[in-house]
Amino acid sequence: MKQQAYIDANKERFLDELFDLLRIPSISAQSAHKPDMVRCAEWLRESLLKAGAERAEVMPTEGNPVVYAERIIDPAKPTVLVYGHYDVMPVDPREEWRTEPFEPVVKDGRIWGRGADDDKGQLYMHAKAFETMVATETLPCNVKFMLEGEEEIGSASLYKWCADHKEMLAADVILVSDTSMLGMETPSITCGLRGIAYMQVEVQGPNKDLHSGLFGGAVANPANVLSKMIASLVDENGHITIPGFYDDVRLLTDEERTAFNSAPFDIERYKQNINIPDVAGEEGYSTMERTGVRPSLDVNGIWGGYTDEGTKTIIPAKASAKISMRLVPNQDHETISRLFSEHFKAIAPAGVTVKVEALHGGAPYVTPTDLPAYKAAEKAVEDTFGKKPLPFYSGGSIPIISGFEKILGIKSVLMGFGLDIDAIHSPNESYGLENFYKGISTIVKFYQYFAESK
Amino acid sequence: MKQQAYIDANKERFLDELFDLLRIPSISAQSAHKPDMVRCAEWLRESLLKAGAERAEVMPTEGNPVVYAERIIDPAKPTVLVYGHYDVMPVDPREEWRTEPFEPVVKDGRIWGRGADDDKGQLYMHAKAFETMVATETLPCNVKFMLEGEEEIGSASLYKWCADHKEMLAADVILVSDTSMLGMETPSITCGLRGIAYMQVEVQGPNKDLHSGLFGGAVANPANVLSKMIASLVDENGHITIPGFYDDVRLLTDEERTAFNSAPFDIERYKQNINIPDVAGEEGYSTMERTGVRPSLDVNGIWGGYTDEGTKTIIPAKASAKISMRLVPNQDHETISRLFSEHFKAIAPAGVTVKVEALHGGAPYVTPTDLPAYKAAEKAVEDTFGKKPLPFYSGGSIPIISGFEKILGIKSVLMGFGLDIDAIHSPNESYGLENFYKGISTIVKFYQYFAESK
Repeated sequence: MKQQAYIDANKERFLDELFDLLRIPSISAQSAHKPDMVRCAEWLRESLLKAGAERAEVMPTEGNPVVYAERIIDPAKPTVLVYGHYDVMPVDPREEWRTEPFEPVVKDGRIWGRGADDDKGQLYMHAKAFETMVATETLPCNVKFMLEGEEEIGSASLYKWCADHKEMLAADVILVSDTSMLGMETPSITCGLRGIAYMQVEVQGPNKDLHSGLFGGAVANPANVLSKMIASLVDENGHITIPGFYDDVRLLTDEERTAFNSAPFDIERYKQNINIPDVAGEEGYSTMERTGVRPSLDVNGIWGGYTDEGTKTIIPAKASAKISMRLVPNQDHETISRLFSEHFKAIAPAGVTVKVEALHGGAPYVTPTDLPAYKAAEKAVEDTFGKKPLPFYSGGSIPIISGFEKILGIKSVLMGFGLDIDAIHSPNESYGLENFYKGISTIVKFYQYFAESK
Repeated sequence: MKQQAYIDANKERFLDELFDLLRIPSISAQSAHKPDMVRCAEWLRESLLKAGAERAEVMPTEGNPVVYAERIIDPAKPTVLVYGHYDVMPVDPREEWRTEPFEPVVKDGRIWGRGADDDKGQLYMHAKAFETMVATETLPCNVKFMLEGEEEIGSASLYKWCADHKEMLAADVILVSDTSMLGMETPSITCGLRGIAYMQVEVQGPNKDLHSGLFGGAVANPANVLSKMIASLVDENGHITIPGFYDDVRLLTDEERTAFNSAPFDIERYKQNINIPDVAGEEGYSTMERTGVRPSLDVNGIWGGYTDEGTKTIIPAKASAKISMRLVPNQDHETISRLFSEHFKAIAPAGVTVKVEALHGGAPYVTPTDLPAYKAAEKAVEDTFGKKPLPFYSGGSIPIISGFEKILGIKSVLMGFGLDIDAIHSPNESYGLENFYKGISTIVKFYQYFAESK
């Protein structure tokens, strides 16, 4: 196969180029790195031009620029829109890194550095697969690239940018490598993402902190009240009690549940990894189902009153919490935010006043496993990894993916090659060399299968 | 009455002396003021000597010294042990003071400055009442003074010092002016103080913060669990659910309750003052009873997870709270701490581990209203204020008072002359000139009535 020969012949150069990309500290969360964002976008534009793009631009947004590139071989052929992001997470705590975060090195068969997996390593596989197909004259589809610089801070500018460039972005599928597989021996494709509704609540009692001796027992204590209100949101069976909360939840068929629960899952290892005595959750569902296909409600933060060392005898004037709910198809995050807000205010007892604010939200997303592009990805992964990949329902959220469907009307296939051990967002991020090279080969195969299916 | 004539003739000097005492910044909480503590103790020793003490000493403790003084007129006569404290609270927030905290001034009939009421103004009334009786040769009892310098930081050294000087401190009653009256038109004597058991709890889930998307719904969230555990500690009727919690609570008789609830109390003004829509508490009890004679449970502080601006999608590894219970006779704070601890651990669900720590405790205290010294105080206050004082059950705690009874076997009478408006512990502390002078007259009368009762 001439593509694989090309990849093998250019292995070292591919890695050298990725290292150049990794050396740019494109941290979107920190404004001091603004120039690095532009530098990184320019670097990618040139790289895609060299790889074979006929058009490549750094396009401004209200925030960091988007790199857009394309090669249209035949308007009658199917079009793949590649999505990725060139921004990376901050590196603190800096002292926990064993190597320089922006000076990548290879050790133990892995690439170490910020962005090695998320998402520079993964997006660069697409650039090099593209180059491979162009160079070997085997590109079977039209290709478009859309690489953003704000994924780690919420993709705020990309929604509008997509809406403004709908025609330019027209495609048959969006292909994304920004997720993980269950393991090298258990390849998987993420075909479900949960949505999210993130709320902040405040319970206000008296107009100032009160002496808990003089007033204790006669005045509603906002911290006690908040605890009681939060406690009531989930019942003893792990069901969320907000009226209407489950109305739009799609239930799995028995066959789907059986298939879902047949994925290999080691519960003892799961508990050990996070050091918990036992799992907990909604009754009647497995751990995989609880995170994959069922919604959840978690307090992400809670605070009120005196929290320093020692004692202070007060009834706090107010207490607050951040509470987020993970959503599944077909729950709508705006509806859920409204239901939460109405319910939370309704259960407030006399003696306090309650404020509720929706901080952010995103819709759940599912890739239908009978989608031609999903089937193509499945075959490509099976070719490269030797096993048919499992469909994996991740508990996490990537709000922009459902945004793409809403704005552009295009489904996404999440063919990611990361692993749990890659420590994305943490110190000592890494990415397997094998994952990088196998990823390139898999992407090349994806294009072939996808073109054939059309 | 020659004592009143003496007081009137020496009014200005009494106030000048108090001002000298108020100028010493004896803040026990701040180690920079250590020399001021000693200076203040020396000043009081000299003042008591001049007032007529036959013996006056600054006695060392493990912390700040105790000023001890006495005048024994006849071992066969009753002995009054005066307790007060010369240490004061810190002055921050400094910028909110309208005058210098340690440069007292008289304005609008009030003395303004830190310690004007708590407790320098109140303790100095005793020194001047003593001087008055000595000077007018009308002292009818033996008098002992015990003035400590650590009340505002928990009286830590006084317990041992009392135990070490039991014989020297022998007395028929301890007389204390360190509390308030309901009002000038509603004189009262504090005859009940609640005890306290102050706990800190921690609920630990996973060994690190988890991604709330990947794990949400499958792992016990310590912040949700803590909320549920706290919520369960008080039922919907305001009863505390800890098994055995009420076992030792003394119930009031119907007559006691009727008397108790006949004290004037304006619930609308109460709600307005602290700006709450409604009061709340244990069903079947009035607001005065809820704070005066019933125990309570309050969260004083709660914290866990992400509490800054914006959102962070985590399941916090742990969540904590400070929880204190106010206790009434005959609850024992050590028993209650133990019951709380056992119960809190027992209700922890699988999936978390729980730590409970008792931070501090103190016993409740009650002055029997048929005590001769209480009767003497009642008559003295009625003489000076024109109305029989109401027995008042304060919700607050002064742990050293029950300590005195335990260590020395002596009951205390809490004949305080402060008012709510004095803003003790706050900026712009003040004390009414009228309260100061009426206090001196009342104390003189107390000694007469108390001597007559014996």
